[in-house]
Amino acid sequence: MLIDELLKPLLVPNDKKIVLIVADGLGGLPLETGGKTELETAVTPNMDALAARSCLGQTVPVSLGITPGSGPAHLALFGYDPIKYQIGRGVLEALGIGLEMTPKDVAARANFATVNSDGIITDRRAGRIPTEKNMELCAKLQAAIKKIDQAEVIIRHGKEHRFVVLFRGNNLCGELADTDPQHEGLKPYRSRYMRSEGQPTALMVDKFVAMANEVLKNEHPANTILLRGFAKHPDIPSMYDRFGIKTAAIAAYPMYKGLAKLVGMAELETGPATEEEFRTLDRNYDKFDFFYIHIKKTDSYGEDGNFEAKVKVIEELDAALPLVTKLNPDVLVITGDHSTPARLKGHSWHPNPFLLCSPYVRSEGFTAFSEQNCARGGLGCFPSASAMPLMLANALKLDKFGA
Amino acid sequence: MLIDELLKPLLVPNDKKIVLIVADGLGGLPLETGGKTELETAVTPNMDALAARSCLGQTVPVSLGITPGSGPAHLALFGYDPIKYQIGRGVLEALGIGLEMTPKDVAARANFATVNSDGIITDRRAGRIPTEKNMELCAKLQAAIKKIDQAEVIIRHGKEHRFVVLFRGNNLCGELADTDPQHEGLKPYRSRYMRSEGQPTALMVDKFVAMANEVLKNEHPANTILLRGFAKHPDIPSMYDRFGIKTAAIAAYPMYKGLAKLVGMAELETGPATEEEFRTLDRNYDKFDFFYIHIKKTDSYGEDGNFEAKVKVIEELDAALPLVTKLNPDVLVITGDHSTPARLKGHSWHPNPFLLCSPYVRSEGFTAFSEQNCARGGLGCFPSASAMPLMLANALKLDKFGA
Repeated sequence: MLIDELLKPLLVPNDKKIVLIVADGLGGLPLETGGKTELETAVTPNMDALAARSCLGQTVPVSLGITPGSGPAHLALFGYDPIKYQIGRGVLEALGIGLEMTPKDVAARANFATVNSDGIITDRRAGRIPTEKNMELCAKLQAAIKKIDQAEVIIRHGKEHRFVVLFRGNNLCGELADTDPQHEGLKPYRSRYMRSEGQPTALMVDKFVAMANEVLKNEHPANTILLRGFAKHPDIPSMYDRFGIKTAAIAAYPMYKGLAKLVGMAELETGPATEEEFRTLDRNYDKFDFFYIHIKKTDSYGEDGNFEAKVKVIEELDAALPLVTKLNPDVLVITGDHSTPARLKGHSWHPNPFLLCSPYVRSEGFTAFSEQNCARGGLGCFPSASAMPLMLANALKLDKFGA
Repeated sequence: MLIDELLKPLLVPNDKKIVLIVADGLGGLPLETGGKTELETAVTPNMDALAARSCLGQTVPVSLGITPGSGPAHLALFGYDPIKYQIGRGVLEALGIGLEMTPKDVAARANFATVNSDGIITDRRAGRIPTEKNMELCAKLQAAIKKIDQAEVIIRHGKEHRFVVLFRGNNLCGELADTDPQHEGLKPYRSRYMRSEGQPTALMVDKFVAMANEVLKNEHPANTILLRGFAKHPDIPSMYDRFGIKTAAIAAYPMYKGLAKLVGMAELETGPATEEEFRTLDRNYDKFDFFYIHIKKTDSYGEDGNFEAKVKVIEELDAALPLVTKLNPDVLVITGDHSTPARLKGHSWHPNPFLLCSPYVRSEGFTAFSEQNCARGGLGCFPSASAMPLMLANALKLDKFGA
């Protein structure tokens, strides 16, 4: 991304503080055409007062019309081109499940599945076995398989039929095709490498599958495993390297801790409630330049289609906000990573409401933080990846470009 | 364009319908500073009601400040990068004149011109001979020249001194320089190839010019021809290939039918009046996923500088609109390809008013479809080429990007 080369020589260290509050899936939709969104419905006196002394706008995480997953949406907000830095599925699953990854690791998302006596897949999800059974089987696999060739094998259960396998060793290659054929009535594929240097890793994966089949042979319905989304930890420069700031993440859910760790943020221990997260900010305020605070429940209730509960989470955020504003951060941003309208019960393509408060904003005359006001805000509709340069500028951490 | 690679794996087939109404040259300018544009002057109760439940914005076809021709402006709206996919002048002229092109064809735009006894061009346009004379001369040329070497020659008259030549044969090359030196007082150039494989085509073109000169030697003032804009039909992937949708064009003018055919749209037989076009939509509504409806007269009257007549065409569009809205399309867009302000009597660089109605839009609080409201709309000012991903998203035809 050109912006990298452009920013680096301009970085100015100072002791100003940036607080980025990401209410996951904040942006919404009215339940009926012409109605109010979740954010517009919520009673938010603190954010409204903040809007009056902020600049507003809308962010587009990837490109207009594109609905992003949490990975690309967060990376963009952290200042990374989400198309350039795509994170493999296996890595996101590993992060989501709370596994730490090193540069030596190849991660794969795994399913327990059912094959018949001819080796044909009859159920790609082994009847969605209960999580307890999954835990038991993963423990059994891990007890039997600790190392293959020179690589360590780390197995961690997820929910129902899902688990993650990490292979940790020298010279492993992440560019392998799925063993999961994605359809029942077929045999699982052998592991196939996409470049010649992947051959030893593919052979190791085949050995792993054979060993797992041996362990599972008397189980039913989970008598085999299917692997997909092989990926190594991507080579991402840290936010410190790119922006010269010491960064910390206040997030309670593994996936977001993992994403923050990907870009080199320190992880701060915190309780999951918004108020607890804001108290965590208070306790650590002197130690970092930049704080990312993640609020999960806006997204969770959006995914559930629970408009009222999402409204309530936004109101809780608003009620707790004085814990942040009393610290008087030099730059305070409140936004979402992507929209999750309760109406759609899932992520959406709609741009995100974005509020930036600093001493250096023009008056926009708004008296509420809402999608409608953000749509008319002075920042316009801009790529999420530009939020970081904007925050740095407002913290006076960027020098002039050119003479 | 990277967006292609990004979209392809996200495409989700469903039976939702998208209707794109392009009022050619819709965007305008006030006749006096501070006044109203054509769209703002027109009385448009149906579009205004639609605006209240739509999201608004402005599209930029190529880049801010760039006035596009119909080719790039339309291709952008169809989701194609108009800088990557440039259509040769000869091809646009051929399409504009209603000629069908095959992948074997090289098209050239031709002028009748006048040379003196020394072969020096004295008039590049042969005194703008009347179209009737042009038709007579084209018939004479076509009667005398049907084939050169192995290539078929197809000649079709345009207006005044303009005509089109198609050379249809195996292994022809479109990369030839103009024979038209663009200045009087010079001799026409011989045909020159830009890559070595163009040599046979260049020799064929020279033979064609010699044969034409022989046919025209006793004519005056049209005693020679000048050729420019040699081009083959470009290799453009179809909208079906790129977006997975079955597309149809409802357009009465050859150029727009031709542009639609370029991207693989089916052509629906229609009368030229807006109301007739909307009835054509109704008759064919079950057969396609995406309909492009082209309204020509907004542009024609803009080009004529006829503000009032352009206003009237917009009002006719509005009056006929219930024929479309009664079908309740899942996504309805009304926009222009480029602006054609009567004030400027030609295409302009101004962004286009853009209205998108779907069940999944936020409330923007507007009660009229106007340039002024579009400039404040929630979609912001965005590239025309992003309109397709936006339409697909609103038709729920795009899956999530990244996990």
